[in-house]
Amino acid sequence: MNRRAVEAAQAALSGLVCKTPIIRSPELDRLAGANLFLKAENLQRIGAFKARGAMLAISRLEPAVLERGIVTYSSGNHGQAVALAAASFGTRATVVMPENAPQVKIAAVRTLGAEVIFAGTTSTERQEVAESLGRQRKAVVLPSFDHPDVILGQGTATLEMLSQMTDALDALVVPVGGGGLAAGASLALEGTQVELHTVEPIGCDTLRRSLLAGRPESVEPAPTIADGLKSVKVGAHNFPILQKRVCEAHTVSDEEMGRAVVAALFSAKMLLEPSGAAPLALALRGTLRNRYKNVGLLCSGGNIEPSVLARLIAA
Amino acid sequence: MNRRAVEAAQAALSGLVCKTPIIRSPELDRLAGANLFLKAENLQRIGAFKARGAMLAISRLEPAVLERGIVTYSSGNHGQAVALAAASFGTRATVVMPENAPQVKIAAVRTLGAEVIFAGTTSTERQEVAESLGRQRKAVVLPSFDHPDVILGQGTATLEMLSQMTDALDALVVPVGGGGLAAGASLALEGTQVELHTVEPIGCDTLRRSLLAGRPESVEPAPTIADGLKSVKVGAHNFPILQKRVCEAHTVSDEEMGRAVVAALFSAKMLLEPSGAAPLALALRGTLRNRYKNVGLLCSGGNIEPSVLARLIAA
Repeated sequence: MNRRAVEAAQAALSGLVCKTPIIRSPELDRLAGANLFLKAENLQRIGAFKARGAMLAISRLEPAVLERGIVTYSSGNHGQAVALAAASFGTRATVVMPENAPQVKIAAVRTLGAEVIFAGTTSTERQEVAESLGRQRKAVVLPSFDHPDVILGQGTATLEMLSQMTDALDALVVPVGGGGLAAGASLALEGTQVELHTVEPIGCDTLRRSLLAGRPESVEPAPTIADGLKSVKVGAHNFPILQKRVCEAHTVSDEEMGRAVVAALFSAKMLLEPSGAAPLALALRGTLRNRYKNVGLLCSGGNIEPSVLARLIAA
Repeated sequence: MNRRAVEAAQAALSGLVCKTPIIRSPELDRLAGANLFLKAENLQRIGAFKARGAMLAISRLEPAVLERGIVTYSSGNHGQAVALAAASFGTRATVVMPENAPQVKIAAVRTLGAEVIFAGTTSTERQEVAESLGRQRKAVVLPSFDHPDVILGQGTATLEMLSQMTDALDALVVPVGGGGLAAGASLALEGTQVELHTVEPIGCDTLRRSLLAGRPESVEPAPTIADGLKSVKVGAHNFPILQKRVCEAHTVSDEEMGRAVVAALFSAKMLLEPSGAAPLALALRGTLRNRYKNVGLLCSGGNIEPSVLARLIAA
């Protein structure tokens, strides 16, 4: 996998996903001490970048395979993405979700025509149920990050961003759950000088620990407001790609992500979910001040429960 | 004034204002029964389309005039726009604001380097104080809608939208306070088949009443959540332009605008102020269903108080 493969993915995705805008806010720039370029993947189809990887992976399946349906497991946005992609290619998705998944994400998957099955609360439990279903039905099980086409699809968010920039980016900050978006970014950034920073919630830092250890390390994910970033282990396909490119792996607190959601809302007029606001949380801490002029933030999604948003605004 | 004058305004504004994106939402389309194209002027500089008109008008002043500063009166967004434009052209703005202006708008005007003077609560009181100041200082008083360059500048929002559309628009819905944005839209739509609909808050419908009467009619504006749409009387320059083009003039309730703010937030991930959500409020009522295929909504701004938004989400 390399940048050329991401370029091929971008061509394949033409017309299937949105070209999302880059949003600027003088107020956020002032707070961060850098020029921030917010890539608005909250405006992507299904409200998150996940549409890119799922759409690419499913577009590459043989008709006979497609016909048996797609199985996946997801805490939310990837489930919606697979549901959308399955429907777009005339087949049906079955999404194994955690019992405590946000209502807004469950409803969205069902609205897109997919079947929902609930299994436990950990990604391990979901994965077991999904793989068992896949064997029964002889159906493809599409993981949410540990898959070459998923990585390439997610990489198009960064490739697209580079093509939209009139000024050169000095750094890019990407949130990490299992590393799909960040591994894709790593490939898309090949041949550029852009420094890649990753952000994970405190206590869910499988990538940060894996980079220190030199091999994929599991974590027992701590509770976090960022439901999209609660992975047990960075992907096996993803890790070596990330290891070659990541400049620094950071962690942010729930409080910082909550404040970033509110700042994005009132200063940049964009609704982000806590996972999607993690890069802004890092920028608002001032970590990048005096270090970079132009910083890209991959604002990965905007699917947040109204009650959660109301609580963050009141905080 | 005509479409060519709006084209000239667009060329003059290049680099001074943002090209704002058009945002789509399958969920909002479903609720409205039409394909909605949301022109995101909440992402314009200062968070509202008003930057366009103010920037154009001030760019056209002679240096000797500029030097004496600019005076204006505004309930909010126009004040910010004049403050920004004055600073951009190396001069200073004085903004006469109502005593009950939203805190967020007062703070924003001051952050942009303008002087704020408070005068009463009606636009008549503000206008008198501004004109008296203008005479004292021999300074230009820039009104918020009743001015040719302001109308032409606001018209660029519609012209830009037309250039961004790949499908043809059948209708465009524009909110009306004094009619700057809508008169600009009327000019920009010359030579097209697009039907222009306007929206005012119930009880603040100076345009609707003026169209019925055949001449500008004053209203005593009723209380409304849409602080940007509380004008006493449609502009004298604006009315004849609107009279030639407006297809239908509608009114919407505070409750409808409040629901539209929440729908835009969670379905389209965009933060709108109630005035900016007025066109969506009309669309969500179903007024345009089965009548048009592609409907443009001029989502005019996104400057809303956090406490107001929290209340609308909880409603």
